[in-house]
Amino acid sequence: MKNKRKVIFQGEKGAYSEMAVLKFFPDAITIPIRSFHEIFESIINDENEIAVIPIENSIEGSVNENYDLLLQNDINIVGEIFQRINHCLIVNQKHDKKILKVYSHPQALAQCREYINKRELEPIPTYDTAGAVKIIKENNLTDAAAIASKRACELYNMKIIDEGIEDRKNNFTRFFVISRKIVTKSTGNDRTSIIFGLEHTPGSLFRILNEFAMESINLTKIESRPTKETPWEYYFYVDLEGHQTDKKIKNTLENIKNKAKFFKLLGSYKRGEF
Amino acid sequence: MKNKRKVIFQGEKGAYSEMAVLKFFPDAITIPIRSFHEIFESIINDENEIAVIPIENSIEGSVNENYDLLLQNDINIVGEIFQRINHCLIVNQKHDKKILKVYSHPQALAQCREYINKRELEPIPTYDTAGAVKIIKENNLTDAAAIASKRACELYNMKIIDEGIEDRKNNFTRFFVISRKIVTKSTGNDRTSIIFGLEHTPGSLFRILNEFAMESINLTKIESRPTKETPWEYYFYVDLEGHQTDKKIKNTLENIKNKAKFFKLLGSYKRGEF
Repeated sequence: MKNKRKVIFQGEKGAYSEMAVLKFFPDAITIPIRSFHEIFESIINDENEIAVIPIENSIEGSVNENYDLLLQNDINIVGEIFQRINHCLIVNQKHDKKILKVYSHPQALAQCREYINKRELEPIPTYDTAGAVKIIKENNLTDAAAIASKRACELYNMKIIDEGIEDRKNNFTRFFVISRKIVTKSTGNDRTSIIFGLEHTPGSLFRILNEFAMESINLTKIESRPTKETPWEYYFYVDLEGHQTDKKIKNTLENIKNKAKFFKLLGSYKRGEF
Repeated sequence: MKNKRKVIFQGEKGAYSEMAVLKFFPDAITIPIRSFHEIFESIINDENEIAVIPIENSIEGSVNENYDLLLQNDINIVGEIFQRINHCLIVNQKHDKKILKVYSHPQALAQCREYINKRELEPIPTYDTAGAVKIIKENNLTDAAAIASKRACELYNMKIIDEGIEDRKNNFTRFFVISRKIVTKSTGNDRTSIIFGLEHTPGSLFRILNEFAMESINLTKIESRPTKETPWEYYFYVDLEGHQTDKKIKNTLENIKNKAKFFKLLGSYKRGEF
């Protein structure tokens, strides 16, 4: 019998991260891990470990903690997943009373703010969307609902009373598949992620972006994060179209490496599908 | 008798935001407000209202919610404050037992992670640093401490048992003073903040940054935030040296306005002092 691949993710079973794992690795055994910090620790300690981590949401923006962990740890990005976020209002099977409170992760509560206000519910923050379902179930709350995925509802055998309750429907989360060992080959439809640090002089960022512009390399994202060492100095995280083995990309990255104060290649990976 | 100026801030009395208010307006009457959302609402509804809001921390990065609110609301940035973050471990006066738990805002807990691990404390997240002190006091907890400012300790008449417990000492938060009415004059030592949106074509960001580079205008920060309308399209927030009335800046901003899909001037203000 073939061994199934194990993939780790942060949160409880039923989390959107777990759905992303199963979209990329349909046969995987999904293993929940408590924190992003522990995810990276596992990857560093075991070269066969594979993880799926959220990196940005189309409404809320970047997951800062994971951007910092990508800088601090020696890992490769080997895949990209886009997961549609479809929030459900979930209650106990024997729910009977009027719902007064709603439990969920602060980001999910923020994404359903208009809906929550219209129903005049009291929002209660929790550490995880699927974890909110667990709380409602274990405490047998009948005047409260959770906001989480359909999958979380099914796993805990609960009842959905409303679906698609997010204020904006363009709600996607982008995930990275990370590992220490794996290196990907060019597929002709790839993205590459890098980090660089610059001298604090006028035009320093411009001179780096000029390298991409001269080669008509399309940048799909630029993000800045504090270096933490020197206040108001930043690392820049750039995603670009192409694979690190493409000649044009390879040469450009070489030039940037020479010009930047700091340079780190995070990996090249096939672009995720919507 | 001269009326004292009222300034609103988010959080409880004793919050770092309140300390920032008093650094900029030493005689102000400080008024706590529950959420950033309500801060902006007050500013919009009353042209005499002034607020101080955190915009980025030198370790944790940008306060995303406030970046989004600056885009959505018609306000001016009229001042900048840098506030040193100096975390204290605070207990009840009659504290006697061994401390097992520590309450604070998740960012403050994150900033003291090494300290918390070394002392083997269980971190409990709260909505505000000063609010954590309030919880310890009101519930008369003797096996728990709060992480907050010295000021919060004094206001609640509590006891500091350790000081400067943050893992990194370069810990500053940058605040904006915002208002609807006030417009500032050039002081010769100013900063200007803008937001722009771009067509998603190769080199579009480069072409905007080129405008600054040609005039040797120094950019001190560049931040991207999702537009929320179209997934993976971003608004760019740029801080630059100079005042909007300086001829060089005025012309450059005019050029950018013509090239960008979206442009918003947030204001010019005297640079804050450390």
